[in-house]
Amino acid sequence: MEILKDRIRQQGRIVSNEVLKVDEFLNHQVDPELVMEMGREFARLFRGEGITKVLTIESSGISVAFATALELKVPMVYAKRKRTLITEADAYSERVPSFTKGIVTDVIIAKELISPDDRLLIIDDIMANGDVVRGLIRIIERAEADLAGIGIVIEKSFQSGARAIREQGIRIESLVRISGLDRDRVEFE
Amino acid sequence: MEILKDRIRQQGRIVSNEVLKVDEFLNHQVDPELVMEMGREFARLFRGEGITKVLTIESSGISVAFATALELKVPMVYAKRKRTLITEADAYSERVPSFTKGIVTDVIIAKELISPDDRLLIIDDIMANGDVVRGLIRIIERAEADLAGIGIVIEKSFQSGARAIREQGIRIESLVRISGLDRDRVEFE
Repeated sequence: MEILKDRIRQQGRIVSNEVLKVDEFLNHQVDPELVMEMGREFARLFRGEGITKVLTIESSGISVAFATALELKVPMVYAKRKRTLITEADAYSERVPSFTKGIVTDVIIAKELISPDDRLLIIDDIMANGDVVRGLIRIIERAEADLAGIGIVIEKSFQSGARAIREQGIRIESLVRISGLDRDRVEFE
Repeated sequence: MEILKDRIRQQGRIVSNEVLKVDEFLNHQVDPELVMEMGREFARLFRGEGITKVLTIESSGISVAFATALELKVPMVYAKRKRTLITEADAYSERVPSFTKGIVTDVIIAKELISPDDRLLIIDDIMANGDVVRGLIRIIERAEADLAGIGIVIEKSFQSGARAIREQGIRIESLVRISGLDRDRVEFE
């Protein structure tokens, strides 16, 4: 997606050789029209797949998942990162490490929101080691639902997450793939 | 907004006489078309106000704020609830209690994302005691930006948040106002 590469070149900030910040248009400030373009592209890629729901995790995946669900005319579900007073006792929970947060969190989805009849599309903003997405995949398996595929805005292909998941035969579509982060340059595949 | 009242009657779940769960269409699962209706309504209410950005807080405000920002053709900024490894050192931070989470959190916005030239519309899903919104208002004041008003999807008018903020002369538009929660009935104003 050339428009996204351009925006990353203009506004992405390289924090280290592993971390790229896209806080000006995706992860803190959000450009709604650019995110709608992402949603339209994911909808185009997965339209024939019989998707019943789009699944993401709070918070940075929500905008893109919303745009994709709007285009596919299906509901969006976002997994929560920990229990609150009003979360269902009856929920799937998986423990996952978070690469950028440097902590372990519980990923939680109310059981009533995923059924064996569902065919899910996972959407997330950035894939590094893929731990959170693997947590969502385990929840889909426990719910006996189908996983149609995974849409990622920015895949850091120099980290192992996406490769390991593709090796399980799961379809991942990434809007851009980054093969390396230099001090002053983002290398795209 | 009658369509929203109907949905609350059908799918809202009364957890206690203070807590209403709307996890089936707004706070965990999201109905994109209903949320776009909310965004169009907020955009209609505030269109003449010269809004430069829509401001919300992760996570449950993001979808509605995104829809509103898309309609107003401005960026959306979501405040974060605590520091991560890649959050700016250069950020506004306000400590606020959370009614539903039962804990105190830090609300954080990178300084570069709000300037004195900005005129902001705060959007959030539910207003109870208004603590989080008051935190956002303090950040807007510290940034010397303008607050155009506040759009709330569900105002629980039997709690004091919205009333106290209106008494400061700040405009709040709520799509529905709930005056009470009975064991089996939501009372709308």
